[in-house]
Amino acid sequence: MKIKLDYTNMVLDIKNIREKIESAKVSISEKKSKGLMDFMLLPHNQGNVVEEILDYKEKMKGKIENIVILGIGGSAFGTYVLHNALNHPYHNEFKTPKLYIADNIDPERLFHILERVDINKTLFNVITKSGETIETISQFMIIKNLLGGKAKELIVITTDEESGSLIKVAKNEGFKTFFVPKGVGGRFSVLTPVGLLPAAFLGLDIKEILRGASQACEDTAITFAAMQYMSLLDNKNIFVMMPYVDRLKLVPDWYSQLFSESLSKEIDNDGNIVNTGFNVAKALGATDQHSQLQLYIEGPKDKIIIFLDVDEYHEEMIIPKNYENIDSLKILGGVPHSKLIKLSKKATEASLTEVGQMNMTLTLPKITEFTIGQLLYMLEYSCAFLGELMNINAFNQPGVEHGKKLIYKYLSKI
Amino acid sequence: MKIKLDYTNMVLDIKNIREKIESAKVSISEKKSKGLMDFMLLPHNQGNVVEEILDYKEKMKGKIENIVILGIGGSAFGTYVLHNALNHPYHNEFKTPKLYIADNIDPERLFHILERVDINKTLFNVITKSGETIETISQFMIIKNLLGGKAKELIVITTDEESGSLIKVAKNEGFKTFFVPKGVGGRFSVLTPVGLLPAAFLGLDIKEILRGASQACEDTAITFAAMQYMSLLDNKNIFVMMPYVDRLKLVPDWYSQLFSESLSKEIDNDGNIVNTGFNVAKALGATDQHSQLQLYIEGPKDKIIIFLDVDEYHEEMIIPKNYENIDSLKILGGVPHSKLIKLSKKATEASLTEVGQMNMTLTLPKITEFTIGQLLYMLEYSCAFLGELMNINAFNQPGVEHGKKLIYKYLSKI
Repeated sequence: MKIKLDYTNMVLDIKNIREKIESAKVSISEKKSKGLMDFMLLPHNQGNVVEEILDYKEKMKGKIENIVILGIGGSAFGTYVLHNALNHPYHNEFKTPKLYIADNIDPERLFHILERVDINKTLFNVITKSGETIETISQFMIIKNLLGGKAKELIVITTDEESGSLIKVAKNEGFKTFFVPKGVGGRFSVLTPVGLLPAAFLGLDIKEILRGASQACEDTAITFAAMQYMSLLDNKNIFVMMPYVDRLKLVPDWYSQLFSESLSKEIDNDGNIVNTGFNVAKALGATDQHSQLQLYIEGPKDKIIIFLDVDEYHEEMIIPKNYENIDSLKILGGVPHSKLIKLSKKATEASLTEVGQMNMTLTLPKITEFTIGQLLYMLEYSCAFLGELMNINAFNQPGVEHGKKLIYKYLSKI
Repeated sequence: MKIKLDYTNMVLDIKNIREKIESAKVSISEKKSKGLMDFMLLPHNQGNVVEEILDYKEKMKGKIENIVILGIGGSAFGTYVLHNALNHPYHNEFKTPKLYIADNIDPERLFHILERVDINKTLFNVITKSGETIETISQFMIIKNLLGGKAKELIVITTDEESGSLIKVAKNEGFKTFFVPKGVGGRFSVLTPVGLLPAAFLGLDIKEILRGASQACEDTAITFAAMQYMSLLDNKNIFVMMPYVDRLKLVPDWYSQLFSESLSKEIDNDGNIVNTGFNVAKALGATDQHSQLQLYIEGPKDKIIIFLDVDEYHEEMIIPKNYENIDSLKILGGVPHSKLIKLSKKATEASLTEVGQMNMTLTLPKITEFTIGQLLYMLEYSCAFLGELMNINAFNQPGVEHGKKLIYKYLSKI
């Protein structure tokens, strides 16, 4: 059950950066031993947490019909990705617990969720690593007020064990809590309770997700990172991620945060001003052949295309032979949709390659908890490795701090 | 009820291209009179079509619980945008007709839709301008087979009046049909039955959508186009569209097709090789402040940010004053979410402007059928105008033809 990387169409020679790769490997391993790469420990150190999540789920059994996530950015993307990949696309129409994600402060978001759920039968999972995210804190304050005496039973908080306002509140008032390990940032937190708790409640096998992550292939991740690094050197800094699988549709959103936020930096590790950046574009095959392909084929050569694919879909649809008298319909008779989408991808790949538009493909054998765990960890590892290759700090986000301060300044003047 | 454009933070002087703008106006108007800009007629010439749609809806009353769109790209984006903007975000959980969009040939897509609907109570709207889109045709063949004798009653076809296989099939077999006017391409077709028929069935006031479109401000659209043109000249060809409104979340997807496909061309109108291109990035505020802002602030200055905003939301949430003893929570007490999201946008705008990252804002008074009609038409007009400024043909897509031929070649070898 390995994820394969095909980079035949990249026309870049990894040998040219062999030394750089070797020194990045050394550097990653040094940083790991210094406790600076703690996301790498998650596939191995969340065993007890998993048991605690499963116990908690058992305890809440029969009490809830909905789970509402109060969290934004890295506190929500992981749940979106896991749910989209592993559950029914129309889950909320006929399954429980229904999932609602309040990852915005458009007032209509929470309003419409509250219209839909019986709050007395709803688990509210408040998620903020820092414990200070104002969007999330504001939603917590609203929900706590509405729940009144039932707040302690129906709110569960995922945050840092020591720092931030939320852990103080949780301790004072006795809320159930789960922790994001200190050295793991929000965008690397899908394999902590941030992603695992909602996943468990939504019926996913979280042990398998972690087992998949623990067996991700680092060599493949390194090659994937190296291809992206060489593309950057080649002045291509737009990375289109285009799954040809509905179940992977939201991976580009998650990848976009992970890579854009981690790898866009003004200053490198030596203090040089670099203003480097990683633009991720999101697409879906075959759908976006009808909206984006013109750009990829005839537009500027400032990008690479990263396809995601599967060997096997979960279901099949076969086109019947009911128009044998019309040539353009007859040719489709008897063809399975899984074959048609693969031919579409093959045609897109060939068209791109013919005009010199570089592209590569990550192929999962089939979408399961195990392979999704593999994929997410592999992308995290690639991201960290790219940070080393680029000589930048992939784990901070200095650019957004100023805006956060401005909001407090504006609030104080209301 | 006007849409406003604030381009204070663009630091570009429109006077520099005044002559170019004037000659583009002349050129657009000439092309319009030659029948080369037929999308501009739609706000005025769809009156009879609207009546036919409403009659058809009346005729189907009581017969259907679901509407399934079989269409891809421009045949689906318009419905996504209108439904997302104007209906309840959890529509399918409690309203009818439920909407399902089969805009992919991942075999699981149609499979899961068929799991959810009673096909005997479902309207299938097959939409393809060319009448040859293989993804859509293949789905039509499957559904027609499943419906058997009920196919004629439950399939409605939207296509070109004369060309393509689908109109032949429709005529032979007596399917109900609606037409995409000859001179209107798929990505400009939201104001034809392509977008209007599903919208009407979903309960929207399609006359208001057209009335809004008819009152869109062309001057604002021209300024919007001019700002984007000058950004391109300034080597910024990444356009981030970031609504601070959930209801506009899918506008960037629609805009992305419209602008990327129309304005990415290898060759200009004089035959010069230009390989120009329009990369659209999709974001949502305040959500993506937590995933993309780091890139916009510290990354390369290769982009502009286009915010979408509203003066008034439909609902409100007020944060209670329940933590007066903790400073960082106290400051939120009493603040409405509509105010908090506006301050978030203001802080983002200020942070971007401080580091020289250009940005502009389109503000709608409130989201209604009328203002959405205005917005969509305004963006279409801007797109056509940009085509004139860039001296390219905004209405073809030569780059994707080769891939389409390749698929038929592969199919013939199965």
